[in-house]
Amino acid sequence: MFPAIAGARSLQHMELSFTPAAIEALVKPCKVAGTTDSPIRGIASLESAGPGDIAFLANPKYRSAVAKCAASLILLPADFEGEPPAGQRWVFVDDPSVALTQLCRHVEALLRPRPAPGVHPSAVVDPGATVSASAHIGPLCVVESGASIGASTIIEAGSFIGRGARIGEDCWLGPRSVVGAHCVLGKRVRLQPGVIIGGDGYGYNTVGGRHEKIPQLGIAELEDDVEIGAGCTIDRARFSKTVIGEGTKLDNLVHIAHNVVIGKHCLIVAQVGISGSTVVGNNVVLGGQVGVAGHIKIGDGAKAGGQTGVTSDLEPGVSVWGTPAIPIIAAQKVGLLQARIPELFRRVGKLESALGLPKNPST
Amino acid sequence: MFPAIAGARSLQHMELSFTPAAIEALVKPCKVAGTTDSPIRGIASLESAGPGDIAFLANPKYRSAVAKCAASLILLPADFEGEPPAGQRWVFVDDPSVALTQLCRHVEALLRPRPAPGVHPSAVVDPGATVSASAHIGPLCVVESGASIGASTIIEAGSFIGRGARIGEDCWLGPRSVVGAHCVLGKRVRLQPGVIIGGDGYGYNTVGGRHEKIPQLGIAELEDDVEIGAGCTIDRARFSKTVIGEGTKLDNLVHIAHNVVIGKHCLIVAQVGISGSTVVGNNVVLGGQVGVAGHIKIGDGAKAGGQTGVTSDLEPGVSVWGTPAIPIIAAQKVGLLQARIPELFRRVGKLESALGLPKNPST
Amino acid sequence: MFPAIAGARSLQHMELSFTPAAIEALVKPCKVAGTTDSPIRGIASLESAGPGDIAFLANPKYRSAVAKCAASLILLPADFEGEPPAGQRWVFVDDPSVALTQLCRHVEALLRPRPAPGVHPSAVVDPGATVSASAHIGPLCVVESGASIGASTIIEAGSFIGRGARIGEDCWLGPRSVVGAHCVLGKRVRLQPGVIIGGDGYGYNTVGGRHEKIPQLGIAELEDDVEIGAGCTIDRARFSKTVIGEGTKLDNLVHIAHNVVIGKHCLIVAQVGISGSTVVGNNVVLGGQVGVAGHIKIGDGAKAGGQTGVTSDLEPGVSVWGTPAIPIIAAQKVGLLQARIPELFRRVGKLESALGLPKNPST
Repeated sequence: MFPAIAGARSLQHMELSFTPAAIEALVKPCKVAGTTDSPIRGIASLESAGPGDIAFLANPKYRSAVAKCAASLILLPADFEGEPPAGQRWVFVDDPSVALTQLCRHVEALLRPRPAPGVHPSAVVDPGATVSASAHIGPLCVVESGASIGASTIIEAGSFIGRGARIGEDCWLGPRSVVGAHCVLGKRVRLQPGVIIGGDGYGYNTVGGRHEKIPQLGIAELEDDVEIGAGCTIDRARFSKTVIGEGTKLDNLVHIAHNVVIGKHCLIVAQVGISGSTVVGNNVVLGGQVGVAGHIKIGDGAKAGGQTGVTSDLEPGVSVWGTPAIPIIAAQKVGLLQARIPELFRRVGKLESALGLPKNPST
Repeated sequence: MFPAIAGARSLQHMELSFTPAAIEALVKPCKVAGTTDSPIRGIASLESAGPGDIAFLANPKYRSAVAKCAASLILLPADFEGEPPAGQRWVFVDDPSVALTQLCRHVEALLRPRPAPGVHPSAVVDPGATVSASAHIGPLCVVESGASIGASTIIEAGSFIGRGARIGEDCWLGPRSVVGAHCVLGKRVRLQPGVIIGGDGYGYNTVGGRHEKIPQLGIAELEDDVEIGAGCTIDRARFSKTVIGEGTKLDNLVHIAHNVVIGKHCLIVAQVGISGSTVVGNNVVLGGQVGVAGHIKIGDGAKAGGQTGVTSDLEPGVSVWGTPAIPIIAAQKVGLLQARIPELFRRVGKLESALGLPKNPST
Repeated sequence: MFPAIAGARSLQHMELSFTPAAIEALVKPCKVAGTTDSPIRGIASLESAGPGDIAFLANPKYRSAVAKCAASLILLPADFEGEPPAGQRWVFVDDPSVALTQLCRHVEALLRPRPAPGVHPSAVVDPGATVSASAHIGPLCVVESGASIGASTIIEAGSFIGRGARIGEDCWLGPRSVVGAHCVLGKRVRLQPGVIIGGDGYGYNTVGGRHEKIPQLGIAELEDDVEIGAGCTIDRARFSKTVIGEGTKLDNLVHIAHNVVIGKHCLIVAQVGISGSTVVGNNVVLGGQVGVAGHIKIGDGAKAGGQTGVTSDLEPGVSVWGTPAIPIIAAQKVGLLQARIPELFRRVGKLESALGLPKNPST
């Protein structure tokens, strides 16, 4: 989830470069040392950086890497001691991580500039919809009757906002988002491309061998500061609401069934599936491809490793793994012994022979 | 899959409310008792209902919950005995479940009114396509040459119907559906948003270490009354057809590979993947995240629990779980014992010590 | 992945038929024998073919099936001996597989004719984008500023190409493709419908219990001859690039996290998920629903069976299965013994009884 910083040349693909002076204007150093003429075209770790890159010392334990670093410019903490080699600029700041974030946000704004307020002429916005004057509705979007779009919200090309849906302020919906009828997004919600909010929940009554659809009359609601990854599907409730709590972040291709209620500040990694009516607490972490059964409760702060199958309630704070889920320490031991199960059968057979016991498993 | 009925206020998000009289006009009670002035703005279970809600007694075993129910209106079976408290209306009907369904269908039609017949002016419909006069083609849809759209079918905004595709009568395709060239949908087929029918099957010949694409010339066909969940992908066959049988229902993000043939009235839960050329019988139930190998047969009525890996044929009527799949009773026993496998190794070691046998696993 | 050739009538759904003469004009036989008047409307295996079908003898070991084959026309190797029955045409060619491929490519071009060069009038192409005169931009596509579209590339209806993205020559992007800002596609890249390239990577810094988004400034790059299945999501890197190597093929609904680097000529089957910063070698094969942890290395030519959970590095050339992954031979043995684990507990209990040892697992 939290990748190490990869190799150089991260700005080149955008045809961006910065002068050292431009970077210093952004990060406001307390002092500088050395000089470089090189334009900065990449951000990299101390180890992988080369000429034309900016590197940074975020963690004091990597101090010794500075001497070997080939970057043209290094962000350093104010108390770092030493002298830069020829052609390298040292830029001292209170907190190199904060300075790096400033720089990244600046680059992000160049990579993805905020589109201007207004509705693109190719968008189809129903006269009965309410769109804030500061919102942006991109090309070929559809906004149906009764929908409302909050201030400073950006809806990228080809998105669909169904009748009566309510999108809060300062949201950013990527291209080809779908927000179904009457669904609700809070403030600062981000949807990556292709997210589908408010498909019908999966519910049928089986009558005489045929599955009759149960109307799905509820909605899906995403609270403030939720982010949803590309291609996720979040179904509307049968009645009432499917809820994604404040600050919770979903990775790509996650499936959230109807009537699920997820708490605040959870991390739900890619390809997780959560079955209907399950209640997930706050600060829960579910690893990639985890499956969660329906109608159960996951306690606050519980964690499940990748591919876990959660088939019953989890107590707050537990860490589990495996299908069915067991405590992760036990699961790791089982995992290590797994390949030796054939050996165990042989050893038990030898014991039975030694004692003259029959091996017939049915006895 | 079949969620309990969740908390109150299920109609409020649509800004809907009903007078008790309007509800009685819909459900045609055999008798009534008590009075309420409250407009009805929610549907809820007996336990969770409050003032302004309608509740219902569908299962006689919950009779005792009626006395404690705070709903403003309760749907009751004709033979229910007692007196409503002040401010509560009792509405007696032959079958409260049927009455609830009538009410839900009415709400559904308000939530999701049928759009009027006709082609939205922003849609791009090829002159060589055939669109029934009673069909609705939403904004920014594309319908290619030779495609045909049946009577009373609704195609929501931004959908794509490829050349020669045939969509039957009374279908409902959600926003951003894709139906590829020459694919066929029967009658009353429903696609949730973002479904992709007829992507190429995954087939390559590996020649000299490079994978050469095998043309995928077949189609995908969905028979009558099929419903497909949001974000599913159903590939076209190499030759002939990938088939989803009559009345089968797929949940979200399911993957169906080329040449798969699924029978009638199956339930395929979210994130299942079925590999190429596998044949699935009728009335099969596959739990969430099940994976099915290619070129195998699943017998009628077989069931697989969540995350099962089905690697070989399943007999009709079996219930399996685990990877590789074993009968579910055995799998549940294994699941319970799993965490004790390290203990078993220790116990075998002690037995070997007691008998003076070597523990070396390689012997 | 490589389906057997399924039943007959594979061309009928396209309302295609060929005269035997038309087929012979395509495959240029070295000799012919027998006659048929039947138009050819299907392609089928020797066993399943009937009148109106073409069949073929690709593998000499099926020679004996020719005598029983009811096809109207059979493609045979030049050295095949015998006489056709009445009403059957034998068409001798150097290599029946090559002849079949010629025929299939011909049918493919009819199924999916190349659209003419040019930009559909309903597409929204920024004046700052560069579109080759020989490229096709379908209806209701969006191409943002600074994007470039190479020669002979086809972009089907409703696709989105973000600012500064670069699409090479001879690519084919299916309907509703999304290529995010600055992402790069090489030559002859194919996207099935609904693919999402360049969603933000999943990265947050957790500060005081809240997850703060880490800007994702990199791109995703697909090298030459890559094909991506329907509904896949490939995230952009934090810095630098997420890379899919030359000739690698992804099946449907695969998730590739940020900073993943996949080598050349890999096969990644449906619903696989690969976590951030993992490096996958060349010629790797990952079965359906495999999950791969972050920050690990998969060696060249490694293979993982369906649903495997790869939690640590894999050596080149290994074959693994299970979660956690172990060598496939061991995993298959464990799989066979799995259902007998309850039996093993009983047998150990009997041994303990026989020796008078206590069974208490905690001792």
